[in-house]
Amino acid sequence: MGIIVQKFGGSSVANAKRVNNVAGIIADTYRAGNEVVVVVSAQGDTTDDLIEKAQEINPKASKREMDMLLSSGELISASLVAMAIERLGLPVVSLTGWQAGFITDSTHGAARIRRIDKERVENELAKHNIVIVAGFQGINRYDDVTTLGRGGSDTSAVALAAVLHADVCQIYTDVDGVYTADPRLVKNAQKLDEITYDEMLELASLGAQVLHNRSVEMAKKYSVKLEVLSSLEKKSGTEVKEVIKVEKMLIRGVARDNDVARISVIGVPDVPGIAFKIFSLLAARKINVDIILQSIGRHGTKDISFTVSRMHADQAVSVIEEVRPTLRYEQLVCDSTISKVSIVGSGMVANPGVASKMFEALSEANINIQMISTSEIKISVLIDEADSERALNAVHNAFIGD
Amino acid sequence: MGIIVQKFGGSSVANAKRVNNVAGIIADTYRAGNEVVVVVSAQGDTTDDLIEKAQEINPKASKREMDMLLSSGELISASLVAMAIERLGLPVVSLTGWQAGFITDSTHGAARIRRIDKERVENELAKHNIVIVAGFQGINRYDDVTTLGRGGSDTSAVALAAVLHADVCQIYTDVDGVYTADPRLVKNAQKLDEITYDEMLELASLGAQVLHNRSVEMAKKYSVKLEVLSSLEKKSGTEVKEVIKVEKMLIRGVARDNDVARISVIGVPDVPGIAFKIFSLLAARKINVDIILQSIGRHGTKDISFTVSRMHADQAVSVIEEVRPTLRYEQLVCDSTISKVSIVGSGMVANPGVASKMFEALSEANINIQMISTSEIKISVLIDEADSERALNAVHNAFIGD
Repeated sequence: MGIIVQKFGGSSVANAKRVNNVAGIIADTYRAGNEVVVVVSAQGDTTDDLIEKAQEINPKASKREMDMLLSSGELISASLVAMAIERLGLPVVSLTGWQAGFITDSTHGAARIRRIDKERVENELAKHNIVIVAGFQGINRYDDVTTLGRGGSDTSAVALAAVLHADVCQIYTDVDGVYTADPRLVKNAQKLDEITYDEMLELASLGAQVLHNRSVEMAKKYSVKLEVLSSLEKKSGTEVKEVIKVEKMLIRGVARDNDVARISVIGVPDVPGIAFKIFSLLAARKINVDIILQSIGRHGTKDISFTVSRMHADQAVSVIEEVRPTLRYEQLVCDSTISKVSIVGSGMVANPGVASKMFEALSEANINIQMISTSEIKISVLIDEADSERALNAVHNAFIGD
Repeated sequence: MGIIVQKFGGSSVANAKRVNNVAGIIADTYRAGNEVVVVVSAQGDTTDDLIEKAQEINPKASKREMDMLLSSGELISASLVAMAIERLGLPVVSLTGWQAGFITDSTHGAARIRRIDKERVENELAKHNIVIVAGFQGINRYDDVTTLGRGGSDTSAVALAAVLHADVCQIYTDVDGVYTADPRLVKNAQKLDEITYDEMLELASLGAQVLHNRSVEMAKKYSVKLEVLSSLEKKSGTEVKEVIKVEKMLIRGVARDNDVARISVIGVPDVPGIAFKIFSLLAARKINVDIILQSIGRHGTKDISFTVSRMHADQAVSVIEEVRPTLRYEQLVCDSTISKVSIVGSGMVANPGVASKMFEALSEANINIQMISTSEIKISVLIDEADSERALNAVHNAFIGD
């Protein structure tokens, strides 16, 4: 008994059958005596279909109009879910983003939530209504419709849970929790009962794709307890929270990210300011750099390597080619056929043997490590993309096993 | 140079090509130096598709949720039209019903516009933006989304034209104006350059289906000059206004309506209050009665006949059967195979020969008249449905010809 926020993604409401299934989950939660607020995404391929319609008419449509267009997708799923609940005889009301009080900044296509005027939602709860909110959207201070960008509905749900002081924010997806590795790639991957926000953040940014980073960051900031669950199977999922019970497991998960391109600037003069020049240029073009590695200078030159997402690789290369006259490097190399494999776990910090155990596992699998990057709770290696699935399994077996 | 409101129906924006065509019409109007406000309906079959989705989930969904669902259709077309105009390099903004200030009552599914807060639209016009408004929708005083029901987008357009004091409200459809008869039925039907509101009202309610009655009534009330035009062909349409130039044409148009059922209550006692009893019963069930005819009493009994739309025929019959004990009629007859053919024209009033000319034309075509009803600007006859197309042509030839 308390306030529960539930979020259902696009695949969970893709068709009438799925919508009815979701209504059943919501009804069960309500009948158990909870106040229930639900955030839904657009049905299945709706958003892609709308983008296609727009592309056909104007491939360079303004982001404002794209937001107006795309916001309709969540209105449709919110009202359909409400109708399915009406059919079960329970009191329900669907709300658009603005009706639910979502006020954002004006960054169309990737807006940030400024605040939520929770009056309407609280009034509906006070009337014992189940409240279905269209996710992914809000309005800015000029009353224009905005959308929150990737993972937007997760963010809507966590933000609502935060302002309503909900007991839990349940994220329903088509997987039943967070795994130690992608179960499609690693057969003996195990579901985690619990994970910390920080571990989840590392796993999310490493390509685990269960929860979007923004929503996890927000959950951490406002201490919203998250739960990742399957909308298709009735079983316990994974809880994401600040502190978890100490377990013997050192490593929480292993992740692979193929969206990596490595760029190496070889033979730059070994003088101060070179790295700054390169990365300020990339930042000015809004190109995010992930791992950076700089070799020790020898013979008056050094090498600088870094990784970017593959969609930014060409742009990064041309930015650096433009300044060849000032950088005076010898060679520029870009490799888009590499992968990043990482292990994540809060327990790693105090355990110096972790890195060597990971490298040993890769060595035994005859996999060459191209670059290494470490942080308090993760170790990432760059390897050949062709080796990535084998690497994932080798590392998973070494740390987690069956 | 002035303010022009343009309304485009669902077929006019059905696909990318049509949307681009509509954008061209809007751009031409804007480039000619006008301030342009556009009202759009949902694309082609969008509304039907959404209704189907709802039916699959809950055939008895609440009207509130249906409104939420259906309102998304116009958001999609409004943003797509705006994108097409952006592509032409013109400044444009799309607005939802609530953003455009449409405040309605709470009759979900058939809401009435209470007022329009025109501030936002005027601000956008002041910024030299073309304004695209999602038709058919608004919000009530509780911030819930409402829809205006049949012909809703026409009504949105006329209401906006009224509050903005627009010079003209152009209704773009897939026909190029108002005709003296349905061109699909009468080959030599002629397009009218002008027609009065009252004539248009009679023609609309007689099944001409070019403009919805509510919008014409509103245009008359607020003296909004209407123009019916084709979105597919570039030519002049039909102007609808208060007073039109005197023309030699006596009859403005001939219409046929097949949605007619005639119910005859035969042999009721010829005492006061019988007609009142019948029609108050029907009114209580919200059954609209069109033509009423009462025979002169003979031998202490009389006959009362009236017409209703066919969807109400069965209900009307059972209402009257229920009160047979009190009405004490001899026989109840319902005929759903009849048509109403009407002639409309302001010029008729002062011309006593019109009715006889109509009856003569029907007589020469060997068509039997079952009932007659007249008003200041129209004469309607009920005939056998099988004769209706011949009747339409006979009357059209008699009054209008080639």
